Amino acid sequence: MTTETKETANPLLVISAHAGDFVWRAAGAIALATERGDRAKVVCLSFGERGESARAWREGKKLEEIKAIRRSEAEAAATELGAEIEFLDAGDYPLRETPELVDRLVRVHRDFEPAVVLTHTLTDPYNGDHPAAARMALQARVLAQAIGYDAPGEPLGAPPVFFFEPHQPEQCDFKPDVLLDITPVFERKRKAMECLPAQQHMWDYYTDLAKRRGVQLKRNAGPNLGLAHDTMAEAYVRLYPQTTGVLA
Amino acid sequence: MTTETKETANPLLVISAHAGDFVWRAAGAIALATERGDRAKVVCLSFGERGESARAWREGKKLEEIKAIRRSEAEAAATELGAEIEFLDAGDYPLRETPELVDRLVRVHRDFEPAVVLTHTLTDPYNGDHPAAARMALQARVLAQAIGYDAPGEPLGAPPVFFFEPHQPEQCDFKPDVLLDITPVFERKRKAMECLPAQQHMWDYYTDLAKRRGVQLKRNAGPNLGLAHDTMAEAYVRLYPQTTGVLA
Amino acid sequence: MTTETKETANPLLVISAHAGDFVWRAAGAIALATERGDRAKVVCLSFGERGESARAWREGKKLEEIKAIRRSEAEAAATELGAEIEFLDAGDYPLRETPELVDRLVRVHRDFEPAVVLTHTLTDPYNGDHPAAARMALQARVLAQAIGYDAPGEPLGAPPVFFFEPHQPEQCDFKPDVLLDITPVFERKRKAMECLPAQQHMWDYYTDLAKRRGVQLKRNAGPNLGLAHDTMAEAYVRLYPQTTGVLA
Amino acid sequence: MTTETKETANPLLVISAHAGDFVWRAAGAIALATERGDRAKVVCLSFGERGESARAWREGKKLEEIKAIRRSEAEAAATELGAEIEFLDAGDYPLRETPELVDRLVRVHRDFEPAVVLTHTLTDPYNGDHPAAARMALQARVLAQAIGYDAPGEPLGAPPVFFFEPHQPEQCDFKPDVLLDITPVFERKRKAMECLPAQQHMWDYYTDLAKRRGVQLKRNAGPNLGLAHDTMAEAYVRLYPQTTGVLA
Amino acid sequence: MTTETKETANPLLVISAHAGDFVWRAAGAIALATERGDRAKVVCLSFGERGESARAWREGKKLEEIKAIRRSEAEAAATELGAEIEFLDAGDYPLRETPELVDRLVRVHRDFEPAVVLTHTLTDPYNGDHPAAARMALQARVLAQAIGYDAPGEPLGAPPVFFFEPHQPEQCDFKPDVLLDITPVFERKRKAMECLPAQQHMWDYYTDLAKRRGVQLKRNAGPNLGLAHDTMAEAYVRLYPQTTGVLA
Amino acid sequence: MTTETKETANPLLVISAHAGDFVWRAAGAIALATERGDRAKVVCLSFGERGESARAWREGKKLEEIKAIRRSEAEAAATELGAEIEFLDAGDYPLRETPELVDRLVRVHRDFEPAVVLTHTLTDPYNGDHPAAARMALQARVLAQAIGYDAPGEPLGAPPVFFFEPHQPEQCDFKPDVLLDITPVFERKRKAMECLPAQQHMWDYYTDLAKRRGVQLKRNAGPNLGLAHDTMAEAYVRLYPQTTGVLA
Repeated sequence: MTTETKETANPLLVISAHAGDFVWRAAGAIALATERGDRAKVVCLSFGERGESARAWREGKKLEEIKAIRRSEAEAAATELGAEIEFLDAGDYPLRETPELVDRLVRVHRDFEPAVVLTHTLTDPYNGDHPAAARMALQARVLAQAIGYDAPGEPLGAPPVFFFEPHQPEQCDFKPDVLLDITPVFERKRKAMECLPAQQHMWDYYTDLAKRRGVQLKRNAGPNLGLAHDTMAEAYVRLYPQTTGVLA
Repeated sequence: MTTETKETANPLLVISAHAGDFVWRAAGAIALATERGDRAKVVCLSFGERGESARAWREGKKLEEIKAIRRSEAEAAATELGAEIEFLDAGDYPLRETPELVDRLVRVHRDFEPAVVLTHTLTDPYNGDHPAAARMALQARVLAQAIGYDAPGEPLGAPPVFFFEPHQPEQCDFKPDVLLDITPVFERKRKAMECLPAQQHMWDYYTDLAKRRGVQLKRNAGPNLGLAHDTMAEAYVRLYPQTTGVLA
Repeated sequence: MTTETKETANPLLVISAHAGDFVWRAAGAIALATERGDRAKVVCLSFGERGESARAWREGKKLEEIKAIRRSEAEAAATELGAEIEFLDAGDYPLRETPELVDRLVRVHRDFEPAVVLTHTLTDPYNGDHPAAARMALQARVLAQAIGYDAPGEPLGAPPVFFFEPHQPEQCDFKPDVLLDITPVFERKRKAMECLPAQQHMWDYYTDLAKRRGVQLKRNAGPNLGLAHDTMAEAYVRLYPQTTGVLA
Repeated sequence: MTTETKETANPLLVISAHAGDFVWRAAGAIALATERGDRAKVVCLSFGERGESARAWREGKKLEEIKAIRRSEAEAAATELGAEIEFLDAGDYPLRETPELVDRLVRVHRDFEPAVVLTHTLTDPYNGDHPAAARMALQARVLAQAIGYDAPGEPLGAPPVFFFEPHQPEQCDFKPDVLLDITPVFERKRKAMECLPAQQHMWDYYTDLAKRRGVQLKRNAGPNLGLAHDTMAEAYVRLYPQTTGVLA
Repeated sequence: MTTETKETANPLLVISAHAGDFVWRAAGAIALATERGDRAKVVCLSFGERGESARAWREGKKLEEIKAIRRSEAEAAATELGAEIEFLDAGDYPLRETPELVDRLVRVHRDFEPAVVLTHTLTDPYNGDHPAAARMALQARVLAQAIGYDAPGEPLGAPPVFFFEPHQPEQCDFKPDVLLDITPVFERKRKAMECLPAQQHMWDYYTDLAKRRGVQLKRNAGPNLGLAHDTMAEAYVRLYPQTTGVLA
Repeated sequence: MTTETKETANPLLVISAHAGDFVWRAAGAIALATERGDRAKVVCLSFGERGESARAWREGKKLEEIKAIRRSEAEAAATELGAEIEFLDAGDYPLRETPELVDRLVRVHRDFEPAVVLTHTLTDPYNGDHPAAARMALQARVLAQAIGYDAPGEPLGAPPVFFFEPHQPEQCDFKPDVLLDITPVFERKRKAMECLPAQQHMWDYYTDLAKRRGVQLKRNAGPNLGLAHDTMAEAYVRLYPQTTGVLA
């Protein structure tokens, strides 16, 4: 049955540094995939327990407690989106690049056989964990392609990689080359965001961003396509050239 | 009937500086479009009579004679590809940017209503006509979108623009982000190239290039897609972000 | 008295392609200047009568009528911001670069003696008028510096130039290097926007953008500065190096 | 009393790979700060004992001896500039990036609470220690901002970061965006340079550079500002956007 | 005899916007060429009569008078360097790009048959005439290569093009990729500079720059080459790839 | 005798990640060097046993067996080219950057005293080992220059570094600035390629590439140089500025 799933699906793999990143930056893509019937899996390298949980620290919570909260929130968001989720608990601030962590990601690739991979940008002067996660994700994907790499499973194909949007895109040299229409699933993205109550100020920020990217999508698609007035979108940057049989 | 055509088709517009450019650089995309049943139209701003007809000049031919030869060769190639072709005879080496020429291109856009536009790169240190053509093509496309621009027809939508491959891609800052599989139509591209006998050395050069881009396409698509051993491809650069409902 | 004004003030000159640009992109900077007691002057090279007045054209209005409407709206917005405004009526879509128009801008520089100049970015693949305006503005500023240039007035100093934010910043290679706090004058910016009723969808779009840039300003300024919760900001790119006596 | 100092001052932190870097590249900024009454602190990750002490090695000196010489020279230069100095003695050629060294820098940030940070550029094909120092400095600054990072002191704000000038600026992609007028303190910079006798050829080299940057400062500030004929300057590149209430 | 010269020589062509540019920026390259026995020719598109003659204007001189002075100074400098010089008197500030002026440059290329071409950078935010001159020089060189271009002489080969150094290199995106050792001819460069008395402040500025580039040349050539202590150099950027039979 | 060799020769050092890289990417440069009588040495950091030996793995060979095959093939190719070869057996996929490996490369530099160094590009999204090898090679070269670095031999000079061509040049930001004419030695390059039977599909791929680069070399050198019809070339990117006494 697993085999069947693999044959018929386009599994989506999302590798994020902290527990919340996949929600703000890629929830639309995830929900679109699962609504189409594809598997989606989120791998959180850390919980964001030190660097992205300021409120909890100010409230005097302890490290393990914070990790537990972040885990449960992220699980709720993943459930809302229909995605599987796995936590590698590698620590954040800083997220350390190690051969062992890369090896774990290779095994995830070999096991999950993604058709598409999403991760952070390689530049982010505000958060060193993001590029560290991206470098490990990219390295793991390449290693998983090598038949000689000693890990279970078949050599990976060449799934396209998309960088999702960082918090300050221009400062991260993020020039979108894909605008993804997430209108049909935006409500699910909003609900997933609401699973993260500690970052409530982000709900509206990323709703506004989705509107803004939606306006740009309509501008780039042209007025003749009959897009919804309130088109919502997510922006991505493609790492490798698109391969296609049709220019469009 | 024209209306019907417009409703059902994705017309492809190719704007090239000289009479031969569309063959070397975009014949695959054109043949794919016409095989799908879409209209394709080539607009040649000049015949390349001064800058790309060295052999004819060495043979002592006259200007008008050379233009006639180039016209008939380009027409033969277009026919081979199933495309319409129009010559604006604006002169080459240099191709001069004028408001009148831009206006003619606006009218082409309004009339043809392209769903996709192909043109030269904006940088080419070997040939100033290529960027001049590209600048005029891009300006015309934007002007055609304005309802207030005084030309017949409806305001244009926002057709995506792709730059086709220049002769020395790296020197033109051409970093392909689309690899188009032209295997099914490569024979037609070859035949179209053979309609240009004065540039016979180019036939193999661009056949080799198609192979090379094909190898890259396979590398980027991954070994699991079962692509043909001799996949042939053309490379393109996308000017505007892709708008889509699926990441792939 | 003019002399006195020149001695004590830091006049702000805004050169925009169309009648509305200065409102969406630079109204905050203008209002800050006039609240400080500095003069601010807006030069509109065109009214945006063809390219940015779609609704009026759809309503069947005529060219001169549209120009009159745009002029009066822009005047109202300028008044709201305390700025002078001048229309050069050079035509839009396309805005043509001519020596005569550059010369008029030289004379504006010589006469107004700006301490700061704002204009469009040099890249904008969605609107050729914007870079055309920027190129002319920059050329005029340099020409005005030359004592040998034949126009009334003294040679200009070296006022810094800032590019204001285009509609799709990343596509225009706009990487902000200045975030301007416009919180104290945002209400005036909003009122100025509301002087342009035909583009009502822009009011919220640029209010949201000001919030977004405000969030980024707070992030870059640091939490310790006690900035307002609802900090509003405009983003700019500096063309020339900043000259200063203090690193901050 | 420390608290008072913190409240009233804008402490300047300079993180340099080797003992001499802060003198050639940032002595002007340091002297300006201390003349204003601000604290300035230099952290030298190494003494430059292997890579920047060629003469001492040729004279047959031993490692510890060289380190002692470099330390005392750097201390003398810091004293001349009114700055505190700390040596982390982490070794040079190569300077190794370790979690422990980054942690020490986090603690420096938490303790010193800089309002401004200066460090090396991220690119330097002539000296790998420089980018290594910069990467660690930037990582430490971000970690120090996280309340969850386990080190004494309060979370850091968001002090702006400036890269100081490398020896071959163009090769290091160093495009100055700030020119700092150091005329009032240049004599102190010269004296600080003279504290490093082993690199006497650098005294004139960096005096000439200050003149050159001074000429550029005057060119960018404009002739009307009445700057000194012999304006001396240092060049910097700003990493994060400037946040301000005034465009100037 | 001309034929002989052509066969044996590597003629150097320098195309500059104003009368003084070739002295500050390329006098070393010119003197090296003429000392080797090669012809060198300078084409000045204008005299720099408006934009680079501030002192003369302040002294109340008239336009024609200023042009005559600039001409005679430039002739003296060219003589000092052993170079031919031609003035096209096309006007400066602004230098206008016209088909006629490009055509004159094509004829210069066809007649002089340069083996190497030097000109300005394509970017210079301080002086629009410099990029205008460069664009015309590059266009003319390409046109001169076309057998079909209607001008006397044989089609040009493909002489390499080097951009010489602008006044503020980093702001002009000038990243040197060639450092030319001009030590043997520096005294002639200095004397040529001294032919331009109105810009006396430039003599030392460009002497210092030659020293600075000389230090960099030594650094890049390595200590083992036994270069002179006071190596003097000019910096250049190569437009087209170097073609060679030896990597060195 | 070694000393004599050093005095008279320009030793060429090639540092490659895997056993085959030097053949596809730099065999022409190597053969040119050895034909001139210069020493050439190849250092293979790994055998490419995991990442570049897919066929052997599919045939069920074991790790040590594969390494032995790759070693003997590479040795044969080196012999064909007249080069020495050394294997550091540091492992591939991933090639790990360690201080020990860098130290070994420092010792190679000190011992071999290269006049020219060739290595991989710093960017390669398809193969992380290539940039890892390049980073270590560059670091080692700089460390070897420091008299204080504790390794036998004299401090290294400043040999120029060239990046050889990656498999997908545009995706690796590889913009050739040197085209090396390898026509006289191409047959030896072909024979060296044929020493690697497992990658037979590469023989033609890199023969075609040499033709393509040869066409470009002729285009950039100009038609007047009388180059062979079938000029073959390799492309390189220069890391440091060229130092020269002649512009050509």
